[in-house]
Amino acid sequence: MSLVRDLASKLHAPTAWSTRPLEDDVLAALLGAARIAPSADNAQTWRFVTVRDPQRHAALTRAVSDNERAILTEAPVLIAALAEPWIIRSARAEQPFFMVDVPIAIVHMCLQAAEVGLAVRVAFDLDEAGVRAAVRAPTSFRVVAVVALGYPTTDY
Amino acid sequence: MSLVRDLASKLHAPTAWSTRPLEDDVLAALLGAARIAPSADNAQTWRFVTVRDPQRHAALTRAVSDNERAILTEAPVLIAALAEPWIIRSARAEQPFFMVDVPIAIVHMCLQAAEVGLAVRVAFDLDEAGVRAAVRAPTSFRVVAVVALGYPTTDY
Repeated sequence: MSLVRDLASKLHAPTAWSTRPLEDDVLAALLGAARIAPSADNAQTWRFVTVRDPQRHAALTRAVSDNERAILTEAPVLIAALAEPWIIRSARAEQPFFMVDVPIAIVHMCLQAAEVGLAVRVAFDLDEAGVRAAVRAPTSFRVVAVVALGYPTTDY
Repeated sequence: MSLVRDLASKLHAPTAWSTRPLEDDVLAALLGAARIAPSADNAQTWRFVTVRDPQRHAALTRAVSDNERAILTEAPVLIAALAEPWIIRSARAEQPFFMVDVPIAIVHMCLQAAEVGLAVRVAFDLDEAGVRAAVRAPTSFRVVAVVALGYPTTDY
């Protein structure tokens, strides 16, 4: 028995999305699962921007790589996963810990998504400046990924 | 209800370990949870080395930073989390994806550990060459972290 394996095995990359919108409480649970992820120095540098507005959604999808764009364009909700970089006092201070901690928070979000039957696509290959512009993030923020969420089609 | 939040909230950093050894099937479940983590290009670059031999255990703890050493020294099991770096064809090819994917696998392991009541400490601040030598890993491998695992003391 393993809850983690059960959840992870439920999670599939979407090929198409249902038109069913994401309920607010589902979205809150996803962000809640991400929020309690562990992080270096417990700095919690993640900054999530939920995008449902069609214009911002379009701007955000233009900032991801060509091979991710089609599936993200059709997703009911996008979440831009950003970070305020945080300096870790460490023997390996050069390590950008936000690139560790934000993906960890995203995985929490993915497992939570699996629990409620959502499909998830995480795009890491993107234009940082384009994402920042789309969600009006400060230039000091780094962009980690864009997370696309939605219910899968019934024949999924 | 959220399984992820339930698991994450069960997980605490250890202050002391029970002498109870980790059962082989528990260890297998931890590695099994890590093994099914998502990774870039599904490359699964993680390489985990479980250390229970006292001499290797001692060598491994010498390779972590001073402030992690005491708690790792007493841990019943250490797992060295390494990676064979993998080149991702990406607009951001400079990103060392193993530093994203191996921590994600470690988080799967941590949530699995929470499920069976284990305490976990993950040390990222370490001497890579020292860890490689302790677990006899090839020099081409990168070191991501050392994971200390054990049952917590009863007054935990």
